[in-house]
Amino acid sequence: MKNITNPTISDWAKICKRPVFPAEDLEDKVKNILELVQQKGDTALKELSLKFDKAVVEELKVSEAEIEASKKQVSEELKVAISVAAKNIRSFHEAQQLTETIVETMPGIQCWRKSVAIENVGLYIPGGSAPLFSTVLMLGIPALIAGCKQIVLCTPPDKDGNIKPAVLYTANFLGITQIFKVGGAQAIAALAYGTETVPKVDKIFGPGNQFVTKAKELVQKNGIAIDLPAGPSEVLVIADSTADADFVASDLLSQAEHGPDSQVVLLSDSSEFVEKVKLAVDEQLRVLPRADIAAKALENSFSVIFNSIGECVEFSNRYAPEHLILAIENAQEFADKIQNAGSVFIGNYSCESAGDYASGSNHTLPTNGYARSYSGVSLDSFVKKITFQNISRLGLQNIGRTVEVMAGAEQLLAHRNAVSIRLKKIQDEK
Amino acid sequence: MKNITNPTISDWAKICKRPVFPAEDLEDKVKNILELVQQKGDTALKELSLKFDKAVVEELKVSEAEIEASKKQVSEELKVAISVAAKNIRSFHEAQQLTETIVETMPGIQCWRKSVAIENVGLYIPGGSAPLFSTVLMLGIPALIAGCKQIVLCTPPDKDGNIKPAVLYTANFLGITQIFKVGGAQAIAALAYGTETVPKVDKIFGPGNQFVTKAKELVQKNGIAIDLPAGPSEVLVIADSTADADFVASDLLSQAEHGPDSQVVLLSDSSEFVEKVKLAVDEQLRVLPRADIAAKALENSFSVIFNSIGECVEFSNRYAPEHLILAIENAQEFADKIQNAGSVFIGNYSCESAGDYASGSNHTLPTNGYARSYSGVSLDSFVKKITFQNISRLGLQNIGRTVEVMAGAEQLLAHRNAVSIRLKKIQDEK
Repeated sequence: MKNITNPTISDWAKICKRPVFPAEDLEDKVKNILELVQQKGDTALKELSLKFDKAVVEELKVSEAEIEASKKQVSEELKVAISVAAKNIRSFHEAQQLTETIVETMPGIQCWRKSVAIENVGLYIPGGSAPLFSTVLMLGIPALIAGCKQIVLCTPPDKDGNIKPAVLYTANFLGITQIFKVGGAQAIAALAYGTETVPKVDKIFGPGNQFVTKAKELVQKNGIAIDLPAGPSEVLVIADSTADADFVASDLLSQAEHGPDSQVVLLSDSSEFVEKVKLAVDEQLRVLPRADIAAKALENSFSVIFNSIGECVEFSNRYAPEHLILAIENAQEFADKIQNAGSVFIGNYSCESAGDYASGSNHTLPTNGYARSYSGVSLDSFVKKITFQNISRLGLQNIGRTVEVMAGAEQLLAHRNAVSIRLKKIQDEK
Repeated sequence: MKNITNPTISDWAKICKRPVFPAEDLEDKVKNILELVQQKGDTALKELSLKFDKAVVEELKVSEAEIEASKKQVSEELKVAISVAAKNIRSFHEAQQLTETIVETMPGIQCWRKSVAIENVGLYIPGGSAPLFSTVLMLGIPALIAGCKQIVLCTPPDKDGNIKPAVLYTANFLGITQIFKVGGAQAIAALAYGTETVPKVDKIFGPGNQFVTKAKELVQKNGIAIDLPAGPSEVLVIADSTADADFVASDLLSQAEHGPDSQVVLLSDSSEFVEKVKLAVDEQLRVLPRADIAAKALENSFSVIFNSIGECVEFSNRYAPEHLILAIENAQEFADKIQNAGSVFIGNYSCESAGDYASGSNHTLPTNGYARSYSGVSLDSFVKKITFQNISRLGLQNIGRTVEVMAGAEQLLAHRNAVSIRLKKIQDEK
């Protein structure tokens, strides 16, 4: 974790650049997978699972019996935790259901918007060593609140063709029953194009490796919406000398353990404090099972010392972090100045992992600087807002001339005629 | 305009397919333009304007004097119309400013979202024969309500290097002053990467030809957000025998005149009514200046006769039209059943052109079936919603165990430690 002191503003852009890990031929490889699935459907999915996951999959769809069995494989303690987290996530996302009122823009002209659920959504839950059941909660709960008719979950099987029990348990706990044993780019292809077994969806959600991310990018060209462009996870902590170095170190490490491509950034107005944090990081790192991964992530990471917390906030707005922790005095005051961030954690006890799992906020967030223009996943991600308008005769009389003049000026005379023909008939009927 | 009667549901997908007009080498051509602008900046913009628009551009930025001159070139009648439309558009989009309350998901855990403007946005206004000043209103007004700091407008110059006065007037009327004479893919490149003169933005809005659309698609890979994937404009009208055939014909034509690739669709439960509309279309078409364009669009268009209006609505939901006009009895009742549409116009007097210009709703809408998963442009498009959380000691004590158990089950022990280390310190302090 290298240190930078008081960089000039002209260097900020360079410092904010995320590390890049280019993958060779990624796009071609993923295009091949997408084509294969379009051509051969389920057969391709099974072949690719064997090739990439070394998994023999007999039935793509998870059976009732497997779901039933998962209930016995998950500890009571974890069941309670899942239900507490689900309750908080539900409360927060239900509060995002806002009804806009009808706006009468002129007498006789009523305009309004209505949120309507996206009918078919696909949730991708990555596999790997850990069962990411928390992502099932983060994507499944808003999809259910929105009222999506069909929720399709894909997740890669292990070598024995099984799905992690915690993932199955959580899906079933929420009421999601269409679960398919397929991962990687082939899962995204299945959701985008549909196969004999996996239903085609309108929008695909969820994190994943480079293959998954590239596949999500590519299927957009076929009209499939995606939640967010993805990049490696990251945290930026702003801490002053009132913060607790152990806490800050633990937050940096909880981000660093995500993957070797993660980036963690510490900003402070105190070089002494930064030194304390680095000592604490070294100490805590030693006992972590994922120490190797975290140590690699720390190599891409850095701290910056500025003259004031105000400057730290300015730099953070430029960096646009996925997660931002404000471990400073008057944290709320500085929180009001945040322009670009995915999710902000205020004060010494708001650790990122609380938000990652259970406090209620969503953990699917914009990384890689996308927080400048993208929001994290929310209820909004599972609906579209349709505009409606109802114009009465009076309304058309009030607005008719305006439309005629504007359409005429844009030389769109059929547009003008659609108004004129109506105004004339209203006139004739008098 | 061909007619289909009572198609079986298995044929619906095929009927809903939009006509495709593939452009040769489009992606390669656009990639070259993007690279050229990245390498040569302003010089490339001027060279490309000369090449594609046959325009000699001395100064890329529109001068104060040009803006001043536009005020004299726009008629008083048009100025009034623009101000009426702007007022309505402002009312409707201001009503989209909703404040979410703080949610206390558990005692001591507060979560909320805050809308924050995207700092730098680019508005692309197409050129061509007509001055699309209405799009300046539709994109500029929500950008201003959101509070975007920098609003950059690009639009192609004519052969003499001038911008259409109505576009300049409208931009200045709203208070947008950063206006640049550049169009096509090169304008999108300028906004995405920045040049010596044109500022780089975070998100690009606006319609355009195939080059513009492809450029918007490609710059997304560089982290630039865009408003919507684009496709040819379209309208679907559902009409029963209570509708006015002349009105319906005028609505179909006002869509058809947009371009030869537009598609218009008429659904009805009455074959007699459809015949009447076709006669009216022929009659109205004859006197239109853009009759050639509209006639070509009608070749890609069709009507379908169903047994009931209920079936028409079902088909429309499958088609997911950009614009949907309900010229039927009990239109409001059927409006409640709409699942997929960009904007819905209810009743005989709600003509699409009212919404295109002045009623208040936005005219930048999802086409090509994207209405299944995308919303049209709104205030939401110009902000991101940042989540915040503030967890007190009590809050962490309430949620700590839940996070520890979940992080443990996901084998992310640094995540767990971030909570444990805090809980331990709270305990020690007692």
